[in-house]
Amino acid sequence: MTGPNFEKTPLIPVIAQDSGTGTVLMLAWMNAEAYAETLRTRRVCYYSRSRQKLWRKGEESGNVQELHELFYDCDSDTLLAKVTQVGGAACHEGYASCFFRRLSADGQSFEVVGERVFDPQVVYGKSSKHV
Amino acid sequence: MTGPNFEKTPLIPVIAQDSGTGTVLMLAWMNAEAYAETLRTRRVCYYSRSRQKLWRKGEESGNVQELHELFYDCDSDTLLAKVTQVGGAACHEGYASCFFRRLSADGQSFEVVGERVFDPQVVYGKSSKHV
Repeated sequence: MTGPNFEKTPLIPVIAQDSGTGTVLMLAWMNAEAYAETLRTRRVCYYSRSRQKLWRKGEESGNVQELHELFYDCDSDTLLAKVTQVGGAACHEGYASCFFRRLSADGQSFEVVGERVFDPQVVYGKSSKHV
Repeated sequence: MTGPNFEKTPLIPVIAQDSGTGTVLMLAWMNAEAYAETLRTRRVCYYSRSRQKLWRKGEESGNVQELHELFYDCDSDTLLAKVTQVGGAACHEGYASCFFRRLSADGQSFEVVGERVFDPQVVYGKSSKHV
């Protein structure tokens, strides 16, 4: 089957996008094993570069990403996953999207524009990267 | 100013999203220089890993990406640029989005779902990666 080329690019960036709203939620990575598991389970499984192992998104928190659609790009080295983010927040800091800081209109600073869905201190006790 | 951390991650992935439709157009990369130029010109400038130099998107074709909003993520190592794609096609293959191949419903193959905005053979004479 054609698809992403893990021989050329063993770690492929994956864009997760909310399938309903179109909000870009996060960017993470897959290796061939994570990709195969994602296809098999229809839940998004990444590869954690920091922990160097499979990262089943939501395994700890229950906030899994259910896969709706999967695309690969013209260079076969990037994936786009359209998902339902269970729990409403993809970001370990409790925001719906990891991209919650926006460049201000004058281009001089960034400001928080996202709304927190949960308080990570309450949910996790401490901030965890892999929720 | 806070923002993406190029000291930690010299080449940062950038997701380009159509600011009007929400369509994810492409993923490319920026170094600190490309980022600074993007902020200064309000047109997206990437860093081409294959050519190892700044890639002013649309410099050859005129199909520039006008920057509307810019976000960085919770790890300060990914950017999201909301843009207007002049000419309507971000992809060098003539599609609006580089993500024009979607996994089929049975998960066994990918199928082209994007519509071609232009024919790259006509516009470029030959396929060019950097349009």
